[in-house]
Amino acid sequence: MQRRRPEQKMSEPVPTTITTAADYRAATETPAQLIPNSSTEGSGALQYISAAASLCLRCDVEVTFQRHFDVTTKGHRHEKSSEQSRNLRQMNRTVVFQAQQGTVLQAQTMLLDEPNERLYIGAKNRLLSLGLERINSDHKEIQWASTESQIEECLMKGREKPECANYIKVLQQYNHTHLLACGTGAFNPTCALVAVGTKATDRLFSLAEESVESGRGRCPYDPNSPCTSTLYRGELYIGVYTDYWENDGALCRLNSQTYTRTERDDRQQLNQPKFIKSAVIPDNDDREDDKVYFFFTEREQNPEGETKAVYTRVGRVCANDQGGRRMLVNRWSSFLKTRLICSVAGANGIDTHFDELEDIFVLKNKDEKNPEIFGLFSTTSAVFKGYAVCVYQMEDIRVSFNGPFAQRERPGHHWMPYEDRVPYPRPGSVSRPL
Amino acid sequence: MQRRRPEQKMSEPVPTTITTAADYRAATETPAQLIPNSSTEGSGALQYISAAASLCLRCDVEVTFQRHFDVTTKGHRHEKSSEQSRNLRQMNRTVVFQAQQGTVLQAQTMLLDEPNERLYIGAKNRLLSLGLERINSDHKEIQWASTESQIEECLMKGREKPECANYIKVLQQYNHTHLLACGTGAFNPTCALVAVGTKATDRLFSLAEESVESGRGRCPYDPNSPCTSTLYRGELYIGVYTDYWENDGALCRLNSQTYTRTERDDRQQLNQPKFIKSAVIPDNDDREDDKVYFFFTEREQNPEGETKAVYTRVGRVCANDQGGRRMLVNRWSSFLKTRLICSVAGANGIDTHFDELEDIFVLKNKDEKNPEIFGLFSTTSAVFKGYAVCVYQMEDIRVSFNGPFAQRERPGHHWMPYEDRVPYPRPGSVSRPL
Repeated sequence: MQRRRPEQKMSEPVPTTITTAADYRAATETPAQLIPNSSTEGSGALQYISAAASLCLRCDVEVTFQRHFDVTTKGHRHEKSSEQSRNLRQMNRTVVFQAQQGTVLQAQTMLLDEPNERLYIGAKNRLLSLGLERINSDHKEIQWASTESQIEECLMKGREKPECANYIKVLQQYNHTHLLACGTGAFNPTCALVAVGTKATDRLFSLAEESVESGRGRCPYDPNSPCTSTLYRGELYIGVYTDYWENDGALCRLNSQTYTRTERDDRQQLNQPKFIKSAVIPDNDDREDDKVYFFFTEREQNPEGETKAVYTRVGRVCANDQGGRRMLVNRWSSFLKTRLICSVAGANGIDTHFDELEDIFVLKNKDEKNPEIFGLFSTTSAVFKGYAVCVYQMEDIRVSFNGPFAQRERPGHHWMPYEDRVPYPRPGSVSRPL
Repeated sequence: MQRRRPEQKMSEPVPTTITTAADYRAATETPAQLIPNSSTEGSGALQYISAAASLCLRCDVEVTFQRHFDVTTKGHRHEKSSEQSRNLRQMNRTVVFQAQQGTVLQAQTMLLDEPNERLYIGAKNRLLSLGLERINSDHKEIQWASTESQIEECLMKGREKPECANYIKVLQQYNHTHLLACGTGAFNPTCALVAVGTKATDRLFSLAEESVESGRGRCPYDPNSPCTSTLYRGELYIGVYTDYWENDGALCRLNSQTYTRTERDDRQQLNQPKFIKSAVIPDNDDREDDKVYFFFTEREQNPEGETKAVYTRVGRVCANDQGGRRMLVNRWSSFLKTRLICSVAGANGIDTHFDELEDIFVLKNKDEKNPEIFGLFSTTSAVFKGYAVCVYQMEDIRVSFNGPFAQRERPGHHWMPYEDRVPYPRPGSVSRPL
């Protein structure tokens, strides 16, 4: 594939609303392009990944992700958004879902079920199932509020009333007949299965009451806590703060028997992470080589231990990671991370960085190994606010993970390429059953 | 003096035109405040100097320095500037100087002579002397264009016609009766003395033709080249690119017999400097302790040798520096530099930096040792443009120069505080005649 640096389109009018993957692609116009950067950085990190296909959105306009109805999942609501939605509706690409009059949806998460043509929504105290064709006449709803005793306990802890509800943060296709749903349960995380039937005509949508159980480690306590999850081969991969006080941000895999996670209190692995997205992406046709990718931001500290910057990261584990041995039982043995760079080059050689990841969209191709990764980024500055969309080729992300490692001899030293012999098996590679 | 962090005034209307020192002070409103920062950085650098008294100007408004007439020295002209000047005139604080009809002044430098109530201006092909009271009726002018042969030679070198003029870049009070003026002379720097008489009633303003001589090392070749100079005790202190190709930016002292300068091709000393301002500021009542300060920006390189950032620096030499010995004859033995930080703190712990120094104003106090340093800064980003005024106390700058040194063990290491024994006499201290 030819790689050329796209023209920057700073001064042209830019799309301010992205509704679909196609729009996402249209927003960047040029096919995904990437200039690999050989500089290294980050905690246990590899190569930087630079996106040349960046499109800087006008700095006074926010992007709203409108997923075919008038819901914004990440609070990217802007004073212009009503005008934007009106424009979208005129384009006949938006249908507004009318929640019950007087109620606010407060959607937390969504799950698209394309074969059954349903869109499931986890919201405050309820789950929704919408038909993709006629969302207003063909929707079903499950009320799932916190119990009285849960709310009472939550208020006792000094929390505010609005926090003491059940915000559904996790919604995954558990098996052919059920979804897995987890909610904050008034700071008492709770999970349950939701029966959806095996085909569209089943018209089933109900909570399996007998399946309700504790959701600790599978759902955050705080409605505002970042969280991303993926269910793959019966196992839940999740980036989540596992504790009430939000000290323990972790990337975990859970099934009914075991869990595997990042090291607790290891700031080299994760430092104040904000979890955005996760996805299973195969390396090749061998399912044993499948990898799980986590997209998140974390804080970088300078040598004096002060917080200096926010960086966007891609973390990766092997789906078949059995965990480490001895001290490292139940810990990933294949965790690696690298930095995603979204920046606009200046004529003076100085790049303007968009370091705060806001959302990720994984656009699947025919070649399921090489989806395109679309990222929406914002600035970390309190003075200058702007957004940018950057596009990354999966193969370039893979090249980075397979490239040189970075090391920092001591705190106070820069991250430099690791030039000694790399151990065998290479860190981050798939472990084969003996 | 009490130090408090001033409230940020990001959203309030801000002054967009600064005409005088008083305006400069008004723009920041709070008295100069500074939070010394113990982190160290920079080439041979000392402590960072952070200004807490920063005022971020609105990002779509540029600041024009209008020095009592309609001239902007640094091209900070803005589409709103005519409106701004109109406002200023309504405030009765601005008088517009009418250059000859059809001519454009293209002012390069200015010199205020308060005792004689004159303002001297170096412009394209001419020098002006304006009366402070009645600038339009009481002005005198010297035509000083390049010679025909100079222009021809300049065009032969492939330069454009507009460049091949004599842009007066240096204008200093040479003695009681004369100014020193230097111009680019169509890429052939030339200096001369200008007779101005000893008192206002002399009404003298003429070029001393017999004094015309080469200005190499005292004036840049290129009209767009940055340059700052100060004349002190008969010696010219100048930050200038000394060569035609602009490879050799240097901080120099010249008199009729000797010169002293920074090391040629030493990127640790100066790396692509942009010279903004210079000033002599005494340390105490002993004239032997006087220091000369240079304000400039330079480029910082990352470990891979790529240009990474622009930083604002204060450089300092002792006025009585006799130069080094052996290899270091005619080189400063007292040169030190440190970084001036102008930033706005974010709630997330991330500072927004204004790294590009645009102008410096040294506001003299009764205590001549401790002027206030006002800096106008802009961003280095090609995407986000904004300006900020930061104020520094001279005593804090001095504390930084007298504080710990920074060292970098090897390229690829961070700058860290130097913790070994500091040699005696301390680098950067005044050498005493034996």
